Amino acid sequence: MNFNFQFPVIEQIEKRTKAIEENTIYDVIIIGGGPSALTAAVYCLRKGVKTALITKEFGGQITETATIENYMGYKYIEGNTLAQKFKEQVEQFELSLAYNTVVEKVINDKIKKIYCSDGKVYLSRSIIISTGKRWKTLNVVGEKELVGKGVAYCAICDAPLFKDKTVLVVGGGNSAVEAAIDLCKIAKKVILVQNLEKYTADKILLDKLNEFNNFETLFSHTVSKINGKNFVESVELHDLKNDRIFNIEVQGVFIEIGLIPNSEAFEGVVALNQYKEIIVDCACKTSAEGIFAAGDVTSVPYKQIIIAAGEGAKAALSACEYILSNKKE
Amino acid sequence: MNFNFQFPVIEQIEKRTKAIEENTIYDVIIIGGGPSALTAAVYCLRKGVKTALITKEFGGQITETATIENYMGYKYIEGNTLAQKFKEQVEQFELSLAYNTVVEKVINDKIKKIYCSDGKVYLSRSIIISTGKRWKTLNVVGEKELVGKGVAYCAICDAPLFKDKTVLVVGGGNSAVEAAIDLCKIAKKVILVQNLEKYTADKILLDKLNEFNNFETLFSHTVSKINGKNFVESVELHDLKNDRIFNIEVQGVFIEIGLIPNSEAFEGVVALNQYKEIIVDCACKTSAEGIFAAGDVTSVPYKQIIIAAGEGAKAALSACEYILSNKKE
Repeated sequence: MNFNFQFPVIEQIEKRTKAIEENTIYDVIIIGGGPSALTAAVYCLRKGVKTALITKEFGGQITETATIENYMGYKYIEGNTLAQKFKEQVEQFELSLAYNTVVEKVINDKIKKIYCSDGKVYLSRSIIISTGKRWKTLNVVGEKELVGKGVAYCAICDAPLFKDKTVLVVGGGNSAVEAAIDLCKIAKKVILVQNLEKYTADKILLDKLNEFNNFETLFSHTVSKINGKNFVESVELHDLKNDRIFNIEVQGVFIEIGLIPNSEAFEGVVALNQYKEIIVDCACKTSAEGIFAAGDVTSVPYKQIIIAAGEGAKAALSACEYILSNKKE
Repeated sequence: MNFNFQFPVIEQIEKRTKAIEENTIYDVIIIGGGPSALTAAVYCLRKGVKTALITKEFGGQITETATIENYMGYKYIEGNTLAQKFKEQVEQFELSLAYNTVVEKVINDKIKKIYCSDGKVYLSRSIIISTGKRWKTLNVVGEKELVGKGVAYCAICDAPLFKDKTVLVVGGGNSAVEAAIDLCKIAKKVILVQNLEKYTADKILLDKLNEFNNFETLFSHTVSKINGKNFVESVELHDLKNDRIFNIEVQGVFIEIGLIPNSEAFEGVVALNQYKEIIVDCACKTSAEGIFAAGDVTSVPYKQIIIAAGEGAKAALSACEYILSNKKE
């Protein structure tokens, strides 16, 4: 039987976050500000445990995504909008917050110590690591020197700078094809350079890309050098099949070859796999007691917002169980 | 750098689902209609694989939840509304659908055979099982006889029937306390009967319950019998501490003691744990090649919409990888 009866809708949300304090022992400190961290925060706060969050910024990689069409509940939502919704959902609760700082070291004792880049040290019974991933670099001559001068990683952020220019996109996976789609709308010409013989991107994305006629793809090619004085002028390419080196003129290079986990601060504290991802089980437990991890920084496959959020909820519920069973001491 | 540039918003969504066909080999057949099944469907369809879904109904347990406050992206949303959003998100794609039927048996071969209650048999290269859980019963005298006549499991659905009546809620976890909160708003009096010495529900829910003054809780008590001719009239309780049996007059009994997995059709095909949950790894793989599982039916802990959705996405991506690597045959 289905009846409709009215429940009060929460309309007025006051921001209830406050500053994190040194010398206070928190039940859980969450490190990170992306989907998994913010979901973990909501779940911990709803459980009524003393919760703090340390992050450089909010939203994580969502904010670098223009249009999201695979987050369930929204057929279509802009990255920044969804990030804002996640943030507001956390701000309903009394969260203790350290903003604009980075965790540099963790000491794993019964009461864990978290050392931040601003010199502050925070204490907690448990930790949830949700530090995500960052862009992988090519490590070729010219790349580092020309970042922000034609070399870019985030198409969402930087595509508009390349209106009517010729731009190279390095990679052939989802990130590269998404970047190419965004750039095709703006740039004069887009050249995809993929080291493999074919794309590794989803069919739906490739279908979208094929709607444009201002791109071409060089398979089995790599970028060996980026040239330019004040701005990118050309790239040196290596044709792997014919073992031929040649230059092409471009005004921009988007490097879209994947991501690496932000796990450096936790090396030696929790076990990492060969990709430097934090190894977790299905309940988001790491190798260290009282330390949990969730989202893109972990060994859980597939980097998706809905997956990161689900993992954040699991990490939170695991941490809360841990806190409860250790509070009898 | 952040720029705002316009992307076209998808506004007109035409329903593109069609009937599933016998004798067609699908890439993936998803069994279930809840959050994990629908998320899996969206992910498979976006990947461009030939996808079918078999379900008795849509929405799963979301539709039995009045107010959802822990699904990220919505501070507050009604269960039916969120279920509808999930469904519409799937209907954007060319999904093949078998509605109003139940899977009774699966034969796991290279091409898997799925036998339904309506006598039809469907074929697929891979399967995602997302059949969820169902209410656990007390198994006491009078329960089965009085279902729908005062005995209920879904407070969201049936609470309005008990306006100004005295109602018993069996259990002390989140489901029981949520049911008690819903009933306190409507019923004259709510009596919680918990077999343990304390609640196992979340603090935030207990705080909400304590805002009411028309409930009482009997800890260390069990229900041993439900009495009534045409409708519930009284229950027999067992006071465990004093080993005393007594009767109290009530007009309703809500049984909120948890859930059991809908895994019977898959016994012997995939490995189950002691709770009859399908055992999966972090990528939603079961013990059987080409068969994946996601959501409440699995061994993954914590039954939450956001977790089920995340698991559905993982199962889909794992299934798509499997299909791709097996299509070269």
